[in-house]
Amino acid sequence: MAADSLPFSPREYQRRLARVRAEMGARGLDALFLTDPSNMAWLTGYDGWSFYVHQGVILTMEGTPRWWGRRMDSFGALRTCYMEADCIHAYEDHFVQSEARHPMQDLARLLAGIGLQGARIGVEMENYYYSARAHAVLAAALPTARLVDATALVNWQRLVKSGEEIAFMRRAAAISDAVVTQAIALSEPGRRKNELVAEILRTAIRGVEGAWGDYPAIVPLTPSGADASAAHLTWNDAPMRSGEATFFELSGCYRRYHAPLCRTVFLGRPPPEMQAAAAAQMEGIAAGLEAARAGNRACDIANAFTSVLRAHGIAREGRCGYPVGLSYPPDWGERTVSIRAEDTTELAPGMVFHFMPALWMEGWGLETTETILIREDGPAEPLGTVPRELFVKG
Amino acid sequence: MAADSLPFSPREYQRRLARVRAEMGARGLDALFLTDPSNMAWLTGYDGWSFYVHQGVILTMEGTPRWWGRRMDSFGALRTCYMEADCIHAYEDHFVQSEARHPMQDLARLLAGIGLQGARIGVEMENYYYSARAHAVLAAALPTARLVDATALVNWQRLVKSGEEIAFMRRAAAISDAVVTQAIALSEPGRRKNELVAEILRTAIRGVEGAWGDYPAIVPLTPSGADASAAHLTWNDAPMRSGEATFFELSGCYRRYHAPLCRTVFLGRPPPEMQAAAAAQMEGIAAGLEAARAGNRACDIANAFTSVLRAHGIAREGRCGYPVGLSYPPDWGERTVSIRAEDTTELAPGMVFHFMPALWMEGWGLETTETILIREDGPAEPLGTVPRELFVKG
Repeated sequence: MAADSLPFSPREYQRRLARVRAEMGARGLDALFLTDPSNMAWLTGYDGWSFYVHQGVILTMEGTPRWWGRRMDSFGALRTCYMEADCIHAYEDHFVQSEARHPMQDLARLLAGIGLQGARIGVEMENYYYSARAHAVLAAALPTARLVDATALVNWQRLVKSGEEIAFMRRAAAISDAVVTQAIALSEPGRRKNELVAEILRTAIRGVEGAWGDYPAIVPLTPSGADASAAHLTWNDAPMRSGEATFFELSGCYRRYHAPLCRTVFLGRPPPEMQAAAAAQMEGIAAGLEAARAGNRACDIANAFTSVLRAHGIAREGRCGYPVGLSYPPDWGERTVSIRAEDTTELAPGMVFHFMPALWMEGWGLETTETILIREDGPAEPLGTVPRELFVKG
Repeated sequence: MAADSLPFSPREYQRRLARVRAEMGARGLDALFLTDPSNMAWLTGYDGWSFYVHQGVILTMEGTPRWWGRRMDSFGALRTCYMEADCIHAYEDHFVQSEARHPMQDLARLLAGIGLQGARIGVEMENYYYSARAHAVLAAALPTARLVDATALVNWQRLVKSGEEIAFMRRAAAISDAVVTQAIALSEPGRRKNELVAEILRTAIRGVEGAWGDYPAIVPLTPSGADASAAHLTWNDAPMRSGEATFFELSGCYRRYHAPLCRTVFLGRPPPEMQAAAAAQMEGIAAGLEAARAGNRACDIANAFTSVLRAHGIAREGRCGYPVGLSYPPDWGERTVSIRAEDTTELAPGMVFHFMPALWMEGWGLETTETILIREDGPAEPLGTVPRELFVKG
C-alpha cells in the first residue's frame, strides 16, 4: 500500500520488528505465529474486522513478516499492510467454519513450505483468536515442529510507547474528553440510556478537530444505580432516575489507539457515604499518580491508592489498572502488567496505563479513571482533562 | 433477577434447556462447559461485556445451569440471569491475566466440587473465548475427567428460532432498514466516511419505535471504491467520491438479536459491467429466495444463486450465507450451517439466515444481502424492506 496511508513511519515498524526479534532470539525461537489482531496490526499495519476467522502473522528471524488469512481478507491485507503481495498468503473459503477442514491445515502447509517444519515456533496460547482446536490441529498437522507458548511476547514489546504512538493516544484522549463531557451534560432524570449512548457514540466516531474517531475495542459502559455495582453491564432503554449514580467508562479511539476515561455522575443529592467514598477515591487517585513514576513499580501505584482508601475505612481489592494502546475487540487492555500489589514491573517513561481504581459497592458503583503516561521525571501525566470529581446534577 | 426483565419467558428457557440436554444425552455427555457468550446468554439470560476474561456456563443433565466467572462480573450475572445466587460462582481477581495462576484452576475445583471429577464434559474447542491455554490448564487440573469437543452443540440447537426470537429479529430488521436507508441518503461526494458512520450508529442505538438499539456484534462495514473489493475494512475520514461504489453491511440489534442487511450505492454513473453485475446479482438473489424453502437444503440456495451468476458469465465461489440470531462480538453468525455447495442441511421453518451473495471484484465490490426467514410454505421471507437494487445517486 501507499506508505503515506500507513499509520506509522517505516522506521517505527523497523523498531518494532527489532524489539520482537531480540526477544525471539533470547527465547530461542525460530518463528512466531501471531493471532492477536493488535500484535498483527502493530507489526504490519494490518487493519480489518476479520479476526472472527482464523488469520495471523508469521515472523521469522529475518526478512519481511508474512500475513496469512482468508482469501477475501487478503485484499484488505494488500491495502493495509506494508508488505508486498508475495508476503500475503490466503486460504480458500471452504476452510471457513467447516467440520471437514480447518484453516490450520493450510497454515501448516505454508509453514512447512517456508522451511519451518522442524522449527521452534512461538504461538499465543492465551488469546481470543487462537482456539483450543486451532492449536490441536496445527500441532497434529506439523508434528515435527515444536510449538511453544509465546503468549504476550509481542504485547510486552508494546508496553513502552514511541513518540508516534503517544501522539495517537493524545488524540484518542481528546475524543474521550469530548465524549465523557457530553455524557455528563446529557445526564438528567428521564433520559433514556440508549438515547444517551447514541449521542456519545456519534461524538466518538465524528471525533474532534484533527482526530477522526475509530471504533473502540469496548462499547461505552454506562450502568446506573444498582446496575453500577456490576462492572460490565451495557445499556438498555431505561430512563435515568433521580437518586442514582451512573458511571461512563469509555474510550475515544484514534487509528486503533485508545485512551479510556471514566467519570461518575449523580442525579440529585448523593448520600453521605457516596460523597465520602468519592473524596477518598480522588485522594487515592492523586496518591497513585504521585507514585506512578519512572523507577517505581506497578505495585507502588496500587499500594498508594489502597493505603489511602484503607485510611478512609474502605477495603478495596482487585487490580486497578493495566497498559493500553493499540487494541481490537473484545478488550482495550494489553494484558501484560497489572496494577496490583503483586506486580513488581518497573515503570519506565513512555508506558501508558488505564489507572482505574473503581469502587463497586453494595448497591452502587463509583468509577473515576485516568489514562496516564509515565514521564522521564515527576508523577504520571493524565492524558485527559475532564475535572476529577463526582459530578452532581440537581 | 426480576422475571419481567428477562428477554424471554420461563417456558422459552425450559425449551432451550430441554433441546440441549437431549443432544447431550445423545452424545453421552454428563456436562457441558460453555464459553460462547451467545450460548451463555441463550441458556441463562446472562448479558455483559465480560467475555474478555474467562467465564462460562456449566450445564449438567439435571438442575439449574451454573454461571461461573470473575467476581466483579458475578454481580452482573445476578442481575441478568434467572438463576439464584447459589448458582452464581465467582473466582477472585488475582486469577485475571496472571502468569502465576489461571482461572481454569478455579473452574476445575468447582467442577470437582459438584461431582464432575470423573465426568465426560463437553467443551467448545473452537471458540474465541476458550483459548488453547485454557483447555490445557483445565485438562491438567482435572485429569480424571474426560474433556470432549462439543463445539457448536448449543449453536445447532439455536438454528430454528422460536416465535419469541423471531419477534426480536423483526425489530432488529426494522432498525437495519432505518440505518441502511439513512446511509444511502447521506451518501454524497465529499461526505467523510466517519461522519456518515457517526450518524448511522446514532440511529442504530436510538432504534425505532418499539425497539431500542443494542450494540451490533460487528461494526458497520462501509468501504468505498477499491477498498470495497476487500470484505472487512472499516472506516476512516476519507471523503466519498464520485465514480465509486460504497457498500453498507450492518445490522440493527435488539436485545442481542441481529438482522444484517447490506446495500450498495454508486455516486455518479456506474460503469456498464457493474450495472450488469448488479442485474445478475438481483436475479440470483431472487432465485436463491425461491430455493430457500422448508424441505430444500442449504446448498440449494447457493446453487440457485451461483447458477444464475454463471449464466451471466460471473464465476462466484465461497459461501454466501450463514444463520444469524443472538450474538456477541466478534461475529453475528452462528457458525453452524454455511450456505454453500457442500452443505446439505435441510431447511426448516423458523431458520433465519443472512443470505449474502456479495461480489468482491477486481477493484470494486457489490454487496446486496438479506436476512431471510424460512417459512412453513413458499419462498423465504426477507425481514427487511429496503428495495433490492444498486442505488445510484447523481
